[in-house]
Amino acid sequence: VKLLLINANTSVAITDLVAREARASALPGTEILAVTSDFGPRIISSRTENAIAMHASVDLAARHHEGCDAVVIAVSLDTGLSAVRELLSIPVVGMTEAALHTACMLGARFGLISVGARMAPVYRELVESHGLERRLAGIIIIDVEAHEAYQQPERAGGLLLAAMQELAERHDAEAVVLAGAALTGLARKLQPSVAFPVLDGVACAVHQAELLVRLGTTTSHTKCVHGRESVGLSEGLAGLLRGRSE
Amino acid sequence: VKLLLINANTSVAITDLVAREARASALPGTEILAVTSDFGPRIISSRTENAIAMHASVDLAARHHEGCDAVVIAVSLDTGLSAVRELLSIPVVGMTEAALHTACMLGARFGLISVGARMAPVYRELVESHGLERRLAGIIIIDVEAHEAYQQPERAGGLLLAAMQELAERHDAEAVVLAGAALTGLARKLQPSVAFPVLDGVACAVHQAELLVRLGTTTSHTKCVHGRESVGLSEGLAGLLRGRSE
Amino acid sequence: VKLLLINANTSVAITDLVAREARASALPGTEILAVTSDFGPRIISSRTENAIAMHASVDLAARHHEGCDAVVIAVSLDTGLSAVRELLSIPVVGMTEAALHTACMLGARFGLISVGARMAPVYRELVESHGLERRLAGIIIIDVEAHEAYQQPERAGGLLLAAMQELAERHDAEAVVLAGAALTGLARKLQPSVAFPVLDGVACAVHQAELLVRLGTTTSHTKCVHGRESVGLSEGLAGLLRGRSE
Amino acid sequence: VKLLLINANTSVAITDLVAREARASALPGTEILAVTSDFGPRIISSRTENAIAMHASVDLAARHHEGCDAVVIAVSLDTGLSAVRELLSIPVVGMTEAALHTACMLGARFGLISVGARMAPVYRELVESHGLERRLAGIIIIDVEAHEAYQQPERAGGLLLAAMQELAERHDAEAVVLAGAALTGLARKLQPSVAFPVLDGVACAVHQAELLVRLGTTTSHTKCVHGRESVGLSEGLAGLLRGRSE
Amino acid sequence: VKLLLINANTSVAITDLVAREARASALPGTEILAVTSDFGPRIISSRTENAIAMHASVDLAARHHEGCDAVVIAVSLDTGLSAVRELLSIPVVGMTEAALHTACMLGARFGLISVGARMAPVYRELVESHGLERRLAGIIIIDVEAHEAYQQPERAGGLLLAAMQELAERHDAEAVVLAGAALTGLARKLQPSVAFPVLDGVACAVHQAELLVRLGTTTSHTKCVHGRESVGLSEGLAGLLRGRSE
Amino acid sequence: VKLLLINANTSVAITDLVAREARASALPGTEILAVTSDFGPRIISSRTENAIAMHASVDLAARHHEGCDAVVIAVSLDTGLSAVRELLSIPVVGMTEAALHTACMLGARFGLISVGARMAPVYRELVESHGLERRLAGIIIIDVEAHEAYQQPERAGGLLLAAMQELAERHDAEAVVLAGAALTGLARKLQPSVAFPVLDGVACAVHQAELLVRLGTTTSHTKCVHGRESVGLSEGLAGLLRGRSE
Repeated sequence: VKLLLINANTSVAITDLVAREARASALPGTEILAVTSDFGPRIISSRTENAIAMHASVDLAARHHEGCDAVVIAVSLDTGLSAVRELLSIPVVGMTEAALHTACMLGARFGLISVGARMAPVYRELVESHGLERRLAGIIIIDVEAHEAYQQPERAGGLLLAAMQELAERHDAEAVVLAGAALTGLARKLQPSVAFPVLDGVACAVHQAELLVRLGTTTSHTKCVHGRESVGLSEGLAGLLRGRSE
Repeated sequence: VKLLLINANTSVAITDLVAREARASALPGTEILAVTSDFGPRIISSRTENAIAMHASVDLAARHHEGCDAVVIAVSLDTGLSAVRELLSIPVVGMTEAALHTACMLGARFGLISVGARMAPVYRELVESHGLERRLAGIIIIDVEAHEAYQQPERAGGLLLAAMQELAERHDAEAVVLAGAALTGLARKLQPSVAFPVLDGVACAVHQAELLVRLGTTTSHTKCVHGRESVGLSEGLAGLLRGRSE
Repeated sequence: VKLLLINANTSVAITDLVAREARASALPGTEILAVTSDFGPRIISSRTENAIAMHASVDLAARHHEGCDAVVIAVSLDTGLSAVRELLSIPVVGMTEAALHTACMLGARFGLISVGARMAPVYRELVESHGLERRLAGIIIIDVEAHEAYQQPERAGGLLLAAMQELAERHDAEAVVLAGAALTGLARKLQPSVAFPVLDGVACAVHQAELLVRLGTTTSHTKCVHGRESVGLSEGLAGLLRGRSE
Repeated sequence: VKLLLINANTSVAITDLVAREARASALPGTEILAVTSDFGPRIISSRTENAIAMHASVDLAARHHEGCDAVVIAVSLDTGLSAVRELLSIPVVGMTEAALHTACMLGARFGLISVGARMAPVYRELVESHGLERRLAGIIIIDVEAHEAYQQPERAGGLLLAAMQELAERHDAEAVVLAGAALTGLARKLQPSVAFPVLDGVACAVHQAELLVRLGTTTSHTKCVHGRESVGLSEGLAGLLRGRSE
Repeated sequence: VKLLLINANTSVAITDLVAREARASALPGTEILAVTSDFGPRIISSRTENAIAMHASVDLAARHHEGCDAVVIAVSLDTGLSAVRELLSIPVVGMTEAALHTACMLGARFGLISVGARMAPVYRELVESHGLERRLAGIIIIDVEAHEAYQQPERAGGLLLAAMQELAERHDAEAVVLAGAALTGLARKLQPSVAFPVLDGVACAVHQAELLVRLGTTTSHTKCVHGRESVGLSEGLAGLLRGRSE
Repeated sequence: VKLLLINANTSVAITDLVAREARASALPGTEILAVTSDFGPRIISSRTENAIAMHASVDLAARHHEGCDAVVIAVSLDTGLSAVRELLSIPVVGMTEAALHTACMLGARFGLISVGARMAPVYRELVESHGLERRLAGIIIIDVEAHEAYQQPERAGGLLLAAMQELAERHDAEAVVLAGAALTGLARKLQPSVAFPVLDGVACAVHQAELLVRLGTTTSHTKCVHGRESVGLSEGLAGLLRGRSE
């Protein structure tokens, strides 16, 4: 199994971080091809940057999916998820999407924790776009910038633990999702400290992508994009829009 | 990995059917322990029978979970799911639950097909109880009784194909879930005939249960049942309610 | 009019408590047949116990409904309500269901108060299963165990009053439902202390059951269960599933 | 028990019709005081007329509630319901409100049938205003004007039966509400022809009002209107707004 | 363009206040005809008064719409909005409706601030009746009576600023609507103090009404009320219900 | 007033079409600056193309907003709307957004008509993303490709009329929105043929943008993007993300 791991940010450091977690999570024999966008925001942390990075996400998918069995969108806003899913016939999974659905199979309601001032409403809309708002116990944004989170994991860890307890005790969350590529790997470290499941988006997405490949599923062909003209896009993307040969 | 496959019906034939599919779906090395209730309805196909079988589901889980890594509820109404999840600390997955969440990762909206007159509102309520009604494209009940479906798979197959096409074309379903233990295995046969994913509850649940085990998750301990007195229950169930030692 | 009052717990003390309130509430001439389960949890206060007690509820209904005009489910989780309703053709009312619908006819939004740590999400799901979440102002769980509530009514009373005021003042509740068989009878005592209606599930259910009998209604025959085989159930329940003669 | 039955239409013939049904439904000893508006539409069958009649409803309540134990709003749009409920401290029940909540205690989902072209969206909004849209199976408007319905009950009866069957068979309704003062009394006649409950708004409202009186409930005092100045209203209404002495 | 500005209260002082704001907001060449009800509550601040004033609103519309191009309902509960819209074929806009839809075009979620104890649930229901509850960040009722708000604008101003900050910071509101005729004009004064849009209902409604006139739209003719008999209404209203000649 | 009209497609013919309608709709004195993307899809008619065009939309906004008073997104999927709104402090309006909110002020529920096979679920999600699904009567996709619609307006016209009648008569729509840049201008032609309002996205958006400018509103500054690093973007966009000077 070969998975394409798309980082629609332009930060190679984040790609390395998520690729490491992906490889640690994957089944033996799963190969991870991690790619980084060559245009767009350093770290997506606003609606504007997310919109720009949707192009990046689709572009990376078009250029690198050949030979891959599934795609993981390794951005916590699931940037470009439905667009890439429509474009390709192999399975495509978003990291927060995967964590939310996995959380639903572990308890009645989940909490979500992330970083970045003003991101609470954006994550709420993401949960709504997945149709899962009735399973949402609450969202807490901890007071750490994305880049600090993986540079100073100790400080982030303390804030995360407090937020997790609040979600469990005051909001009846039975599972907690850590959303944010910058928080990758922290779930593993913090899990022993709490009595409920803590989920990492990258780990969940890698597992779910492997699962979809092993199930032998494709995405729906009824919605194929083809014969579409475009201007000024990368050759890979333009070609895929023009006609699909897979 | 050892999975406990609970058939809360009292029909061994159905247990055999779902166990066969479970074993065909499982990773090499996964062991399937399939158990059948010794009391309750032959085949659950009404709200009344489902309520009775909830006791059976909890009872089987209490008596047989020792040494298992996860539980699969192999009844299409996910009979007793939240009750078993609360009782145990290992992951517990319902077969329709698993198929619905898997379907959500393959397309925007899913259709559901099942058997049994008057079951449409019951399945609608099941989808609502999972909080997934906004992802539901439609439900079609084909005119076949549960026991006929696996005895005369050809007739069921034709009706299923027609229902799948209707869900895709008229209701914009991008994936279809075949719900009903009696339909187990038909997804595999029918998939080549359609251009969108067709999901089998047992296969999805086995995969999702394996995934949760590999992720290392438990269910939330914050909700533990213990120190509960009861009367007239099986020793296994009464003991587990009284005090948990796992 | 003869009402079957089902206590799906195995605590005769609770049956006595609810039967006393039922008789105090009933019209002159209404006879109350109160029955207690002979298997299952002492006091239902978790999802697991509720699932077990669904069997008990259906079993009691099957064995004792003959000659009754309606059934009251005297468990605050409305344990087995839709299952018993499907099984019988006489009206079946749940105690919390009755209180919620009665509350809706008294004010715009209702609050709900109950006992038992971790029960808030379970009651929220109960309100949702009745489709009444838009009328819900809030849920407060007071810090008293079920058995303490009717053994130490004074302490419970103080906590209940504070919770009621909070629901009215901060959540705009215009009526409050006391949910929990263990709280039976307290509404009557506390009503004089507050300026909004306080509803008791047993009282509401007895009144609503009498009302449905006087209206001459039955439940829908279109959904009848019959000709269903089973194993190891009580004779009364197995016989009713096999064929209905009423 | 004395019930004030408010007809906010100006048609005495309709008042007589609903009063007859109310008396046929009431407990022995219940007195029905039926009043008709002296201003406003002959028969409310549009949003505009309903808005005008809200004033009429409040006015009748203010002028005639003295000495009554509860109020029934005998207009199928529950005209002025929340306004009258806020004004008085005795219970106030709307005829469609009562039928909808009663239907909820008889089956999973209800259908609603009424008369009057273009009224379907108005009834849908009424169901939504009661927060019961998740329990609504469907609405059918039969092709009969309001005044014809009670003048030619045979023709209406045939159309109603067909509509009821459609709601039960195609929309899974387990109970049907006949909404429209003009349909009063037809439920009783048609019930024997169908296998599911058929509910009459006036009958349900009289029963529910008696129930609320016997429960000893009042509406919430926390929302009292008093000390309010007005111009050009009836003495009864202006006086009640100015200061309440009950 | 000539706009009919309906004040369904009987307070000329409020009519003057809203008319002043309307004229300050209107395009050059727009004429404002402001009318005050001659019956009903002085200041609508309860459900009961709102119901009475619906008649007033419809009555004023019927009597004064001739020669006007659009109607503005200048009461913050949008009193009689759907009724007047059904009655006339010219556009009809409610002041809070206009502010809410305008707010939706400025940010993801809006907050609403108003006056009058116990009005929070009434405004919540108003937002729900417009189908906009998913865009609602929160409602705050400041502790000022309606008449004080425009008599002591300084005190109201301080409370409004605090409420606005709370809605923006704690509830993620990206725009705030000041609801209440008595708050008219304060948005303009407070806007410079905050970093997000503050909307005035009258200003928004005048602008939206002008817009609908310039777009050349009418309301739907499919829902016309005509040929309706009535008793005791003003000649203008009775005539319009009887037959429409516009 | 100067409006920036963004066509995130790369088809100048469509820009010309929408600019013509925009100029025909605008107030005297309003200047329209219409810009076309220099990269991306010819005509957006899939989720994939929409995602790519979000980048284009943001890029055009960044490069051309200087000196403009408001922005109109002239793509019927409101491509990049929330991203551009977050980026700029001047008002930003989407063409379908504007039409939907305008429709809400004209009638209870709206219908939506568009072109392009498989676009129904995409428009449903668009309506949901605006939180307006409760106001949606229905969506009809007519069987015409986008480019045919404005090349063969007669054929499209016939199909549109039939769809409009169906939405009004069978789905109770009281207003209809024509969504799709390719349908621009047809509302004007078809309005005389029907008895309910027909709305054009471009016309509505131009009017709403002018309205927001005249109201003096800005978008919320609390959500500002600034100090954001990026790679490989246009100078205009990169500069705006880096630091805002407006």
